[in-house]
Amino acid sequence: MKIVGFETNNGARFGVVEGDNVIDIQAVDPSIPSDLGEYLRSTDGDLKGLADIAKKAPASAKKPLTSLKFTLPVAKPGKIICLGLNYLDHVKEGPQKDNIPKFQSIFFRMLSSLTGHLQPLIRPKKSIQFDYEGELVVIIGKRAKHLTLENACDIVAGYTVGNEGSIREYQRHTTQWGMGKNFDQSGSIGPWMVTADELPRGAKGLKIETRLNGKTMQSANTDMFMFPVAESLVYLSEGMTLEPGDILFTGTPSGVGHARKPEPVWMKAGDVAEVEIQDIGVLRNTIEDEK
Amino acid sequence: MKIVGFETNNGARFGVVEGDNVIDIQAVDPSIPSDLGEYLRSTDGDLKGLADIAKKAPASAKKPLTSLKFTLPVAKPGKIICLGLNYLDHVKEGPQKDNIPKFQSIFFRMLSSLTGHLQPLIRPKKSIQFDYEGELVVIIGKRAKHLTLENACDIVAGYTVGNEGSIREYQRHTTQWGMGKNFDQSGSIGPWMVTADELPRGAKGLKIETRLNGKTMQSANTDMFMFPVAESLVYLSEGMTLEPGDILFTGTPSGVGHARKPEPVWMKAGDVAEVEIQDIGVLRNTIEDEK
Repeated sequence: MKIVGFETNNGARFGVVEGDNVIDIQAVDPSIPSDLGEYLRSTDGDLKGLADIAKKAPASAKKPLTSLKFTLPVAKPGKIICLGLNYLDHVKEGPQKDNIPKFQSIFFRMLSSLTGHLQPLIRPKKSIQFDYEGELVVIIGKRAKHLTLENACDIVAGYTVGNEGSIREYQRHTTQWGMGKNFDQSGSIGPWMVTADELPRGAKGLKIETRLNGKTMQSANTDMFMFPVAESLVYLSEGMTLEPGDILFTGTPSGVGHARKPEPVWMKAGDVAEVEIQDIGVLRNTIEDEK
Repeated sequence: MKIVGFETNNGARFGVVEGDNVIDIQAVDPSIPSDLGEYLRSTDGDLKGLADIAKKAPASAKKPLTSLKFTLPVAKPGKIICLGLNYLDHVKEGPQKDNIPKFQSIFFRMLSSLTGHLQPLIRPKKSIQFDYEGELVVIIGKRAKHLTLENACDIVAGYTVGNEGSIREYQRHTTQWGMGKNFDQSGSIGPWMVTADELPRGAKGLKIETRLNGKTMQSANTDMFMFPVAESLVYLSEGMTLEPGDILFTGTPSGVGHARKPEPVWMKAGDVAEVEIQDIGVLRNTIEDEK
């Protein structure tokens, strides 16, 4: 099942994708929470009821996907956790190349730094160093702490695609990456969440590719993770209670713009950035300048 | 004016402190939003109406402060931004002592890592290295981007006190501090917000002190900031739209537990941590072990 978030005149909602249409779940049953995270909390991560609701949907609850203004699949995630340096090739192309991390590098993004599929990514006034980062994104379905490698993947609701857009100049101002990772509307998540039952456990073995104006810039496979999904969930849950609707970016492979030779490549107005993950989909955004 | 957040059977609310009592603003006027951030959004940062509501409060809307279960002054901040390394003495006692930062070191905390005045701070199962960090905390009142040094402090609603509790072992696992700064309920904010009109502009010249079991561990003055409040708001707003209810920790002075000689000092169950800032108040929390 694919679950998509979108805006309506009555606020953000989510729906189930059926071919080229979306079934507006709240139009079928207005008692269903309009945020996927809240829905997951109400069912302890069980998404099976959605399939039943979708089955009995009248034609009036269906809209073409092309008519949507996409939001993040979870409109209001409680936590947006990011893993850095999770592909060895990417570590090797960066400033930390002689210091291979022994643990997951953890930082955070605020919701204001992210937008949905087909919405513009904003290049800021303050810096031209606007870089893409294609990433697998995990959406948590169940509340959990102190997970084990055996049960960690049981709490995953599904997977989606992310572009963890970064302002490199600000990211390198100090040792902490927080500023360069949190410019307004500089990253994206989407187009939809594919439920975990339709993908390999831990989303292993999926091809991931980032394209800029159609040219392949990053090409890798989630098998190359230094810290696979289960290991990362175990580590995070040593300190943090993971909650339904929480989001985890899993790090980007090599090929980012700042490391390209002979010159770095920065995203600029009019560029089209795409991130594709096998069996999930293509996340597409056009770049615009900050107004 | 002092504004305090507290829990009721009907969810989090805020009120105005009057002597030893709080005036429950929602009990006087149920149409007022129950979250201070939402209220600030509705008035574009103007808090003067609250004084009028407080004035006409019936006795039934007043409760003793001692009866409250304190929450953060803002129940649901949109962003919780943290500045690291903002006092030179603290830089000099840390692992980065030969690398004086030229910019603000920015990282983030999730709401799940914070609790209110008099609520327990939780020492985790996974590490004994639980450290205090006394800090001035800024609460944003108005939406703003691209601030200037002249107008930056105009967007501040008020100031409060923070204990930016840190799990040092996890903070040092990699270059990124995010993990060690986000253990469940490891930090606190409170007891209340003092409105900006009652303090010096930018909260300059305030004495700040952290005590552990009554012993002074940190003693400094906000005049010692390497990056004063206005400078930090200007820097942040180069990338991020600041929003009403957003929270900014401003960094901790020297004297933290991990740097103490001959041995580091870690907080443990039963300890009482207090952070006091002149003309704001005392934030007090007792330490408990994770269950």
